[in-house]
Amino acid sequence: MTSEGVEPGTVRPGGRTARVREAVLRAAGDALAEHGFDRLDLADVARRAEVGKTTVYRRWSSPTGLIADLLDDMAEQSSPRTATGSLAEDLRANARLVLKTLTDPRQGALFRSVIAAATCDERTARALHRFYAIRIKEWSGCVTEAVERGELPAGTDPDEVIRAVSAPLYYRLLVSGDPLDASAADRAADAAAAAARAGTYVS
Amino acid sequence: MTSEGVEPGTVRPGGRTARVREAVLRAAGDALAEHGFDRLDLADVARRAEVGKTTVYRRWSSPTGLIADLLDDMAEQSSPRTATGSLAEDLRANARLVLKTLTDPRQGALFRSVIAAATCDERTARALHRFYAIRIKEWSGCVTEAVERGELPAGTDPDEVIRAVSAPLYYRLLVSGDPLDASAADRAADAAAAAARAGTYVS
Repeated sequence: MTSEGVEPGTVRPGGRTARVREAVLRAAGDALAEHGFDRLDLADVARRAEVGKTTVYRRWSSPTGLIADLLDDMAEQSSPRTATGSLAEDLRANARLVLKTLTDPRQGALFRSVIAAATCDERTARALHRFYAIRIKEWSGCVTEAVERGELPAGTDPDEVIRAVSAPLYYRLLVSGDPLDASAADRAADAAAAAARAGTYVS
Repeated sequence: MTSEGVEPGTVRPGGRTARVREAVLRAAGDALAEHGFDRLDLADVARRAEVGKTTVYRRWSSPTGLIADLLDDMAEQSSPRTATGSLAEDLRANARLVLKTLTDPRQGALFRSVIAAATCDERTARALHRFYAIRIKEWSGCVTEAVERGELPAGTDPDEVIRAVSAPLYYRLLVSGDPLDASAADRAADAAAAAARAGTYVS
């Protein structure tokens, strides 16, 4: 959040601080996608963003500070959930969105880098967890509405269902290396819906 | 696999080559668990293993070569699956084993490091995928037997069910940071079983 008060979903105001932040975070994302986090360098980011090195060092102070701010910005900028009126369709839309992000050349590489960075840095891990908590909360309304419609048992934990949709896709990306395609996405959504209907996520 | 021909599940033969490999891989695992992969250094591993630096450089040549061999060794040494006669119990045993590994201080840190290394190195990624393919295959018999017992629909993809048990636990470890505990493990197993019963993994 800058001093200009950027709000989620709004067009960014044109103040200099906001413009600098946008350019620097864009450059940081590019660098992370290209090189991975272990070679993220503030001077390189400043050069890419065409911003003074001193500004970048003063404001973000370290690569991990920069990654944390990038994640906060991604959470603010990310798109709203769907509301199709059907749990199965909403979860498939969620899975397709996750798939699209993870298989996008820039976004996929960026997420891999940030997740790798979080394995060895506490501050990055906290920013990553905050990012996913916001994204999961955004989509959990699909589950709450399905409970209200009687599609799912009362007491179903909405966040757990949304996490269950993402988990198989991240597992393929980071762990098993199995293909990330539309059929994997649909299956992840359908499995979460089936387990939810069976009452597995009632807490 | 060394020239002495180490077989999975057997006691290691006492030849010098095998002893050196065992000491070096143990030291590499310790170093990865302590420092993360970005500071893995062959000279440090040689020192820890009390083995000549030249031997380590000649045999493994690079940190990624060492990580790949470590993963191959872990696949060879890992324990066999359970066969309780019930899908629900077998999957819970699998989930508890994954949980135990990921929450063990040394093993958990080691897996996080190796997964992070795989995000930025192709050779490590291939070794990681090979490791998981072997582990998944080892456990897929639980699903095949459940299909034979009539617990699951014919045509259920066994590997997909086993992957589904692990995925939510790795997602918590690497992505969302939610607690990794017995209830998360049991829920992961129960969700995979429920989705499998509903026919989600029929291919």
